[in-house]
Amino acid sequence: KMKSIAPGESLLYSFVAEKAGIWMYHCATAPALHHIGNGMWGAVVIDPPDLAKVDHEYIVMQGELYTGPKDKPGDLAKMTDSKFDAVMFNGYVNQYKFKPLEVKVNERIRMWVLDGGPNENSSFHIIGTIFDTVYKEGNYLLKPGPGGSQALDLQPAQGGFVEFTLKEAGHYAFVTHKFSNIGKGALGLFQANNADGSAPVAGMAGH
Amino acid sequence: KMKSIAPGESLLYSFVAEKAGIWMYHCATAPALHHIGNGMWGAVVIDPPDLAKVDHEYIVMQGELYTGPKDKPGDLAKMTDSKFDAVMFNGYVNQYKFKPLEVKVNERIRMWVLDGGPNENSSFHIIGTIFDTVYKEGNYLLKPGPGGSQALDLQPAQGGFVEFTLKEAGHYAFVTHKFSNIGKGALGLFQANNADGSAPVAGMAGH
Amino acid sequence: KMKSIAPGESLLYSFVAEKAGIWMYHCATAPALHHIGNGMWGAVVIDPPDLAKVDHEYIVMQGELYTGPKDKPGDLAKMTDSKFDAVMFNGYVNQYKFKPLEVKVNERIRMWVLDGGPNENSSFHIIGTIFDTVYKEGNYLLKPGPGGSQALDLQPAQGGFVEFTLKEAGHYAFVTHKFSNIGKGALGLFQANNADGSAPVAGMAGH
Repeated sequence: KMKSIAPGESLLYSFVAEKAGIWMYHCATAPALHHIGNGMWGAVVIDPPDLAKVDHEYIVMQGELYTGPKDKPGDLAKMTDSKFDAVMFNGYVNQYKFKPLEVKVNERIRMWVLDGGPNENSSFHIIGTIFDTVYKEGNYLLKPGPGGSQALDLQPAQGGFVEFTLKEAGHYAFVTHKFSNIGKGALGLFQANNADGSAPVAGMAGH
Repeated sequence: KMKSIAPGESLLYSFVAEKAGIWMYHCATAPALHHIGNGMWGAVVIDPPDLAKVDHEYIVMQGELYTGPKDKPGDLAKMTDSKFDAVMFNGYVNQYKFKPLEVKVNERIRMWVLDGGPNENSSFHIIGTIFDTVYKEGNYLLKPGPGGSQALDLQPAQGGFVEFTLKEAGHYAFVTHKFSNIGKGALGLFQANNADGSAPVAGMAGH
Repeated sequence: KMKSIAPGESLLYSFVAEKAGIWMYHCATAPALHHIGNGMWGAVVIDPPDLAKVDHEYIVMQGELYTGPKDKPGDLAKMTDSKFDAVMFNGYVNQYKFKPLEVKVNERIRMWVLDGGPNENSSFHIIGTIFDTVYKEGNYLLKPGPGGSQALDLQPAQGGFVEFTLKEAGHYAFVTHKFSNIGKGALGLFQANNADGSAPVAGMAGH
């Protein structure tokens, strides 16, 4: 059972994973908005039974930053008004822009995405490739076939995964395509190295 | 045919229900935004032919409140700017928090959800359970199987239903997981009584 | 490969269309938000192989307008804050209200929809009809059967198509059902003429 605990205490929480998907966890201690808005949440991934083999698997958790005064927690009033200062992948602004995720051309990649919010949607997109597989909220929206997907739409607490390959050596940006949020930190990079492992020449790969 | 009528007049409107789903109705008398934003809308549910049997069936309609001056209609300028004061289920702030929906453990529940807006999205979620069935805009996104869903995403005028059971006696909150809206009134409760009908001990059931 | 070019230069960009869908194109020259927010984007449609025959096929691209000073580009600060002045279909406010799309009753219509944003979602809806077919991001969400859809939800960079017929002569509005955006320009009209091609009597057709 969920219950509130005091600072310094711990609570062992056990459960049987009955359903596949990417699940958001967070506390329900009031005000939960303040806790989620300070980054106190995460993801549990339960693989579906028929999951295809891939070369790389990543998790990206999108969340907003609501800065408070120096050395203080984030600003609850900003959270209530959804006035965020930044949008982050895995808790830091632009971290995978400064340290790209390295793969090789033509490797198959699965990216789990969870939108933790607390408030903002995600339109997860990778510039320069097309998703041939999309799984959202426990089921496949797209499997390899004639159609392709350019973005996975998530509202807060929703998640899924996308699968794709990067066909030319180079750098590929992953973003939420609500475009103003890219400039607020929701930008990461893949670096697709050549098949022999050597780094690509500088510049963005095309799409 | 739709037409505008004067206060005090009535109009009989008949139609053949050709397609299953949960349908939003509202007037188209200008300014329709002002009418919808004052709550002048509702839902028509047409069951799909293969609908499974459940123990309880509910409808939740999410909409925003835009308060005007005392004893006056809601504020059209606020509606135009999407600056809502509250988010409501079935027209009242927190009504099912004060009067929870009572069910028994392990009963099967279907909840139809319609997002009437006029402006705000919904990420409908129930804390403490997982949806094994999700129907949205006339088709199933998920049927019982390996995957589960934690939230149904709706944009204004969209609807569907979710199915689930509550496995432990206790209270379970239903919300839109755009978390700032929970504190604005988009919070209801299920009270899952014991199998013999007796009330649960106080406190929230876990997940 | 993508690269930035100077004003007056051109770049021939070739690709093999491998996946069906409606694809947004735009530059990646910094600041891309400023370019997209000034309307420098468009759509490429790749038909899926099993596409049904229709009588009319249209493309609607939804985007926001962020006005700048007279004779100057749109305001980047407004774009960053998502404070748009208008929401447009195919680049102009209310253009298909002033010049409706003409069809005949009972003709089958396909409408491709792309939400280019840069920031705002779309809940694409036609007042007075029901979609019996919905295709989103490379796959069918709905095919003709017992269920119907009242709105296609898109986040920025997402697209798809809807299919429908207009069964009575008259005018039918197409909108995004985030209702405040209708008054900001996201309103177009179909004019469904009689089967003999004669114009309908004035007024909106019902639903």
